[in-house]
Amino acid sequence: MTALQERRPSLWRMLVGKPLATKDLPHQAVSRAVGLAVFASDALSSTAYATEEILVILAFAGSAYFGISIPIAFAIAVLLFIVTVSYRQTILAYPNGGGAYIVARDNLGELPAQVAAAALLTDYVLTVAVSISSGVAQIASAVPQLHDRRVELALFVIILMTIANLRGVKESGRLFAIPTYFFIFMSFTMLIVGAIEVALGRLKPVTGVQMIHHDVIEPLTWFIVLRAFSSGCAALTGIEAISNGITAFKEPRSRNAAATLMVMSTILVTIFVGFTLLANAVHALPSHQETVVSQMARAIYGRENIMYYATMLGTTLILLLAANTGFADFPRLAALVAADGFLPRQLTIRGSRLVFSVGIMTLGVLAGILVVFLQANVTLLIPLYAVGVFLSFTLSQAGMVVRFWRAGKLKPGEKVTNEVTTLEHFPHWRASMIVSAVGATATCIVMLIFAITKFTSGAWFIVLLIPTMVYMFSRVHHHYKDVAQRLSAAGLRLKRGVRHVVSALVLVDDIHIGSLRMIDYAKSLGVKWRAVHVAINPAKVEKIQRKWQERVGEGELTILESPYRQLIEPIRDEVQRELEANPEGYVNVILGHLAMDTFWEQILHQNNAYIFSLALQNLDRVVVTTVPYQCHHHEETNGNGQHKNNGNGLPPEVEVKETAETQQSDS
Amino acid sequence: MTALQERRPSLWRMLVGKPLATKDLPHQAVSRAVGLAVFASDALSSTAYATEEILVILAFAGSAYFGISIPIAFAIAVLLFIVTVSYRQTILAYPNGGGAYIVARDNLGELPAQVAAAALLTDYVLTVAVSISSGVAQIASAVPQLHDRRVELALFVIILMTIANLRGVKESGRLFAIPTYFFIFMSFTMLIVGAIEVALGRLKPVTGVQMIHHDVIEPLTWFIVLRAFSSGCAALTGIEAISNGITAFKEPRSRNAAATLMVMSTILVTIFVGFTLLANAVHALPSHQETVVSQMARAIYGRENIMYYATMLGTTLILLLAANTGFADFPRLAALVAADGFLPRQLTIRGSRLVFSVGIMTLGVLAGILVVFLQANVTLLIPLYAVGVFLSFTLSQAGMVVRFWRAGKLKPGEKVTNEVTTLEHFPHWRASMIVSAVGATATCIVMLIFAITKFTSGAWFIVLLIPTMVYMFSRVHHHYKDVAQRLSAAGLRLKRGVRHVVSALVLVDDIHIGSLRMIDYAKSLGVKWRAVHVAINPAKVEKIQRKWQERVGEGELTILESPYRQLIEPIRDEVQRELEANPEGYVNVILGHLAMDTFWEQILHQNNAYIFSLALQNLDRVVVTTVPYQCHHHEETNGNGQHKNNGNGLPPEVEVKETAETQQSDS
Repeated sequence: MTALQERRPSLWRMLVGKPLATKDLPHQAVSRAVGLAVFASDALSSTAYATEEILVILAFAGSAYFGISIPIAFAIAVLLFIVTVSYRQTILAYPNGGGAYIVARDNLGELPAQVAAAALLTDYVLTVAVSISSGVAQIASAVPQLHDRRVELALFVIILMTIANLRGVKESGRLFAIPTYFFIFMSFTMLIVGAIEVALGRLKPVTGVQMIHHDVIEPLTWFIVLRAFSSGCAALTGIEAISNGITAFKEPRSRNAAATLMVMSTILVTIFVGFTLLANAVHALPSHQETVVSQMARAIYGRENIMYYATMLGTTLILLLAANTGFADFPRLAALVAADGFLPRQLTIRGSRLVFSVGIMTLGVLAGILVVFLQANVTLLIPLYAVGVFLSFTLSQAGMVVRFWRAGKLKPGEKVTNEVTTLEHFPHWRASMIVSAVGATATCIVMLIFAITKFTSGAWFIVLLIPTMVYMFSRVHHHYKDVAQRLSAAGLRLKRGVRHVVSALVLVDDIHIGSLRMIDYAKSLGVKWRAVHVAINPAKVEKIQRKWQERVGEGELTILESPYRQLIEPIRDEVQRELEANPEGYVNVILGHLAMDTFWEQILHQNNAYIFSLALQNLDRVVVTTVPYQCHHHEETNGNGQHKNNGNGLPPEVEVKETAETQQSDS
Repeated sequence: MTALQERRPSLWRMLVGKPLATKDLPHQAVSRAVGLAVFASDALSSTAYATEEILVILAFAGSAYFGISIPIAFAIAVLLFIVTVSYRQTILAYPNGGGAYIVARDNLGELPAQVAAAALLTDYVLTVAVSISSGVAQIASAVPQLHDRRVELALFVIILMTIANLRGVKESGRLFAIPTYFFIFMSFTMLIVGAIEVALGRLKPVTGVQMIHHDVIEPLTWFIVLRAFSSGCAALTGIEAISNGITAFKEPRSRNAAATLMVMSTILVTIFVGFTLLANAVHALPSHQETVVSQMARAIYGRENIMYYATMLGTTLILLLAANTGFADFPRLAALVAADGFLPRQLTIRGSRLVFSVGIMTLGVLAGILVVFLQANVTLLIPLYAVGVFLSFTLSQAGMVVRFWRAGKLKPGEKVTNEVTTLEHFPHWRASMIVSAVGATATCIVMLIFAITKFTSGAWFIVLLIPTMVYMFSRVHHHYKDVAQRLSAAGLRLKRGVRHVVSALVLVDDIHIGSLRMIDYAKSLGVKWRAVHVAINPAKVEKIQRKWQERVGEGELTILESPYRQLIEPIRDEVQRELEANPEGYVNVILGHLAMDTFWEQILHQNNAYIFSLALQNLDRVVVTTVPYQCHHHEETNGNGQHKNNGNGLPPEVEVKETAETQQSDS
């Protein structure tokens, strides 16, 4: 007969699902078409808000200058081209994955790698916050009744996404392909229909939009143009996704990933520039009530048309998919940084569903805080966004410049291989180095423009945050190295044949079946033991002593006074006295713990065990033992009485008294 | 020599302060003047928003009807008079404190008492949320730069107040007297100056206020008038405070408390009606940007006048003081209900600062959630507010009706005494019963008006919440009764002279000094033991086995496979096998725990001990022992080496190996 209980499914298990085995992780390689769907959502989704954010800034100078968004969009297209060509080189050089952290660590060293990590982690949190906020804004444009509930809706999506990712989202390429290709299809359709309408001279300006209100209209300055340009650079966020995910592609991985990058950038630039032209054609206005995408779709299809809703649905879906990539990227990078010892180790643990649970929850909480504080407002979030992205672009490409320089120094045929990549001489290293240098310079300039023009509207926070994070990384790293050194047992060994004295203190609150279990355990250990009761309620003491005599009848019961009505302090004092009497021995504090069947029942009991362990953990040579007693519902016992494991339905350590005690209430 | 360490002050201790002794609780009785200051803040502070909320509703019919606020204010004054006279009777009947929960429990029974408790707890959360939100609105009126930061400011105040109350606010009457009397003084001054200006015909309407915008203007209906009336009834909230706090007064307690109630109500009605008249005189408008109090003060003193700022300061301070009373009332009532077994027992525990810590934190979190979700907006919070207050008024007065009825049934001279009060016959019981019945009926009608007219704008939530809470109370009560019965050891006793077999499993991750400590403890216990290592990283196994031979050299090390890369499941399985081999014995799982000096270091380590205790708690007869190892900074050891307690600076169980192991990195 076994004493084990079947565990009920807990609330947590219901939410996150059953544990998965390692073999359940899918490892199929994806084709270019599926790879595009999986990795393009982050980049493509930014077209849903990039044009609008350019207009928001130009509105400071008045709507007359909205046309300037067109040259700005072309400038961003040029920048996108440069970064794409440069990242193509990274993909080819790092077939095992070339994210900015890895490339910086490999070529520039530890500190730049930490900076890249800080920038990327910040950026992933913002990807989630911005994408969900923009997704919610699209929903609120199509269903205006939801306009005042955007923060709640965004939080709800974040919570849902956190739970889904704790369950583990199978990165099923086919499922992800649907929203990505649907968005691409709906966007191109809108651009083509829009172009035809313009050609036929039938496209009318959109009406009934309440433009955002700036208190002061300023003259158009270069500062405003550069600020609008940096807002529009949000369109570039996410293009690095493929460089992180090279290993997911079919062989030849690098070639396939590089080709996919080129296709993705082409689609991205077409939609972004197309949307900007179309927004100007329909005289779209930046507005708190309706997104620019919604205005364009409304101008072209009309509000009641099914195509309008399909366009909005496609846009919303790709934004939510982009947010979901943050839930894949953040925990993965955090685990990488934690494995290098720069972040808490808990981040490296895959939970029962084979996902990095701590990282996912951290991301969910941080994104939730951002959304609440910045009111799920994309315009407020954008100034925090792209500094981190462009910093990581810059570091990654600067790393590639160093790499190509080193390759140029090698003799032809010479190879250097480390754990992430192989470096060898190749003839066109100078050209490649120039491409990366141009890319690094361009993204660095944009980063500076961004940090300066957006400084007062929020970028200051990131400018302070990233060095703070890097400092924290170094403190964490220092701590782990220090602890490993302090704990090292190299050259030491345990003394043979030595036994120290163990004395046990059993903490009893009342004398019920759970307490009898504890006392039985202490007796079974065979060490010196006595029971201790803290007289928080002095009126109860006499009753406890009587019960002790009647129900235990052996051993010593010490009553500790507690003038402060506290539990922990009197016990600490008693433990210290015991330790002083026995300097090299151990004091074993034994606590009871009522184990309930469900979470909700459990939280109704005090769970003192954890509090005691914490309170006593600083005392050298004091160990804490928890003796659980499983307090099951009656219907869950084995059918023949109140308790299990004993012929008469009682626990094995308990018997019925011969002279029956008054069967009084036992409170 | 003692092995104990001085504990550093933790972050928690720095925030909440050192423990206090029971004798530190002040128990001085207060005079009427101080009692007024302590208990009136909640009631008086509602004048800061009651008039405004009447205008907010009347604005649905257009500003032309704002004059209707004057008859509404007089109607509320009549209601206030009825409730005051009725509550005066309660105070005289319950000299030991006559809150609605106690009166309902004493006269109406358990269920009505639970309903009153649910209503009051809800109400205290809302007192905090509404008062802080209104306080922040006053600040934002005086300092418009803070207007967009109201939610953050309100959250900041809630966090600050939570910490202050966890530290324990000494209910120093004199300190509390300052804001209350300052507010009364500034309010009367404004009313007098305003009246003089009106008499001289010099008072000009306030200008530059942006009135709140309702999308649709409706005709003035009785529904709107009643809705405006119920919004204004917020002015009555808090008048029950004195009935909860009778014991704080000097003897004769009941007489002094009753007299204080009459004074408080007189001041309340004067300020409320006065503010309503003055608001009409200056043509104040309900606005999101500026409170009505600020508009009145501005119209009378001008924006730049010191008197304007003094008035705003007084209003803000009394609102914050009112919020603070919620932090005193909520935990006290929750502890009362928990002591009766209807809420989790943790609520009855006074923390180290003699305050009900769990209750204070619960209140802080709930008020914080409300403020975030309802945007620190008084108008959104008000519909949730007064239903609970008026429900508790109704139950309390209905209880008094029953009480007077029972008193009437007694013979002259007959007395019935229970633990809270004494009931005796008195001649005018019929008159008293009628007063209470009128009061109960009036507040019941207002409650119904409130629930109906505010149903769609938020009251529905409270209408659902209160029964839900009552249901939860009953489930909690049922659980505690059930557990006490299941655990009762009445008539049972521990078997004498029986010892069960204990076998220990020592969980080792790596063989460092902390692990040697655990193994030494297991050896010292003198029971059968073996070590267990879960091969999460199979590459490490060989190294662990070699270290085991070199550093421990005795006992058995079992390697458990973990295809799921999990810790807990393989150990559970091993424990179950051990249990099956030893059905009536105990399996003792021994875990290491690295105890760090500071909280921030501690969270960098996995704290597996708590997770294991939880995971194994459902296994019968499985006990978990945590062996902490204190990993101190080098400078904290006793000066002569890396470790303490041993001549050579090593822990007593450890010695240097004769044949030195390679001094390699120990990772």
